[in-house]
Amino acid sequence: MAEKNVSPTMKDVAKEAGVSLGTVSKVVNGIPVGKDYQKKVDAAIHKLDYRVNSYAQGLKSNKTQTVAFLVPDTINPFFGELTFYVNRELAKNGYRMLLCATQASPEMEQALLDMAEQNRVDGIICISYNEGLQIRESTRLVTIDRHSGVVSPCVASDNLTGGQLAVKKLAEFGCKRLLHMSISSALPNEATKRRDGFVSACVSMGLDYQMLCLTDGTPYSVFYDYLTEHITDGKFDFDGIFCGTDTLARLMIVKLYELGIRVPQDVQVIGFDGIKDYATGQYYCSTIVQPIEQIAQTSVNLLLNSDLSKAPPLVCLPVHYVNGGTTRE
Amino acid sequence: MAEKNVSPTMKDVAKEAGVSLGTVSKVVNGIPVGKDYQKKVDAAIHKLDYRVNSYAQGLKSNKTQTVAFLVPDTINPFFGELTFYVNRELAKNGYRMLLCATQASPEMEQALLDMAEQNRVDGIICISYNEGLQIRESTRLVTIDRHSGVVSPCVASDNLTGGQLAVKKLAEFGCKRLLHMSISSALPNEATKRRDGFVSACVSMGLDYQMLCLTDGTPYSVFYDYLTEHITDGKFDFDGIFCGTDTLARLMIVKLYELGIRVPQDVQVIGFDGIKDYATGQYYCSTIVQPIEQIAQTSVNLLLNSDLSKAPPLVCLPVHYVNGGTTRE
Repeated sequence: MAEKNVSPTMKDVAKEAGVSLGTVSKVVNGIPVGKDYQKKVDAAIHKLDYRVNSYAQGLKSNKTQTVAFLVPDTINPFFGELTFYVNRELAKNGYRMLLCATQASPEMEQALLDMAEQNRVDGIICISYNEGLQIRESTRLVTIDRHSGVVSPCVASDNLTGGQLAVKKLAEFGCKRLLHMSISSALPNEATKRRDGFVSACVSMGLDYQMLCLTDGTPYSVFYDYLTEHITDGKFDFDGIFCGTDTLARLMIVKLYELGIRVPQDVQVIGFDGIKDYATGQYYCSTIVQPIEQIAQTSVNLLLNSDLSKAPPLVCLPVHYVNGGTTRE
Repeated sequence: MAEKNVSPTMKDVAKEAGVSLGTVSKVVNGIPVGKDYQKKVDAAIHKLDYRVNSYAQGLKSNKTQTVAFLVPDTINPFFGELTFYVNRELAKNGYRMLLCATQASPEMEQALLDMAEQNRVDGIICISYNEGLQIRESTRLVTIDRHSGVVSPCVASDNLTGGQLAVKKLAEFGCKRLLHMSISSALPNEATKRRDGFVSACVSMGLDYQMLCLTDGTPYSVFYDYLTEHITDGKFDFDGIFCGTDTLARLMIVKLYELGIRVPQDVQVIGFDGIKDYATGQYYCSTIVQPIEQIAQTSVNLLLNSDLSKAPPLVCLPVHYVNGGTTRE
């Protein structure tokens, strides 16, 4: 980059004001000085359009007031919303966000973590898809939803309770034979607890159930084929479906309609996340809503204001059910 | 933040390796040194887990390899996608992104611009809603879509041609009486050129038209009332609508259905932006698609690799039409 001008330094301000460097430093850092001095320095700051160089400050204090946020992308509505609220929380606390879109690639996650450390950020908030991340022990790290394999607090929705709540609601609305569908990482992660909750609730309530849990990368046609195979004489084998995400639920609902199965008349569907159509503000489907704003607040607060070595390894935040039109109530 | 450890410095590496600071500096900056020296320094860097402090580097070189991106939010799908591509382009060029969500507030935009400058970023990419921004002359700035009131290149879709294209398509599909609806800032901005294109095409093609252009903050009920008032005996006064955004188009389509007017049988609708439903990947409606990836690439490339004082004030990128099911072809 070419024509960047050199900005005035504290020295320039001192020279302009005819005072010592120490006096300027005091004024800039809010330490009281004599009225005359204050006036002179203020005038010089104004005249030179001097602004505090926070990189120099950061270097001195070993603080940068910057936090790196690693997220797969900002296109998925869940990630887009989460990024916004984490950004807002950091700003409220006087911190800047370095955004790092990882595209969920382990190599990119590692490269961006290295970059973030090299850049000397004060901490990292990370939604990671990788188990083997190399992170310095001294790095302050909070993960969201997924474990990084390193010792750091993880903030997540109460996924287990969410899975149980979906079953409880479907049962309450008259479902007798349930299906769980999900697609997620083969590695153990927070989201698999939704399935655990589904299973435990079905078992304890004595409900019939089936599961189709695929790993990332499997084509969606496997789900479609499964639905097709479970329709006999226009009747679907299940009267309730719990999907691991709203995105999956929405795709299944579209496919069911194509196959002549009505939602919620023939089968009721509950998703997970709480994603809304941006234009209409309507939920994609009936769903278990993640508290995105609270996840952002809790992550930022843990990172900035707690002794991480004493922080709980997992903080679970409460979810709730909403009717988005794909259940009967 | 409490227990942050002090990271090793170049001095520590020199001491550990038993070489001069200058030698370490050469190695770190890729300048050749004797083989023995190289070996000693590499070993010390490895042992101490030394990483280059790019803040110190940035301070010395007056470069930070960081660009601030100001965007209203990352929840609107258009902004979410744009943020992702700008992030990716910056990373490709070895630059970091400082994300600043402004919520379109002029005060917040100004505060974040000041913060970005204080943070000594190498440049700023900005989607601004504010006419009176105060920006240092030395600040490298590229705006997207909206003008900032300061001299800086603006990257935008070819909105004028887009508006004309919408009219051309509607006419081609048999429409005779067109309506344009939009809601946007009262200040002149790039998006108002969509209306200009609509008007000029209607005039030159001799088509009947009406317009309902509201300013931000007006309740949507004004649009709904307008639609309702233009239905007589179940027949709508218009056979083609061009909406300023896909979001607006989607809301109007929902309302028209409620009012018993079928899309595209009774009225054809074209939006602007190219927003897709995240789950299904389907367009919200027939639309004029903005080249989001190209907007991101062009903005980053202009900011990093051009002499901004000689850059064109406005770069218009080509749009195209897609059938999203709300037109007859």
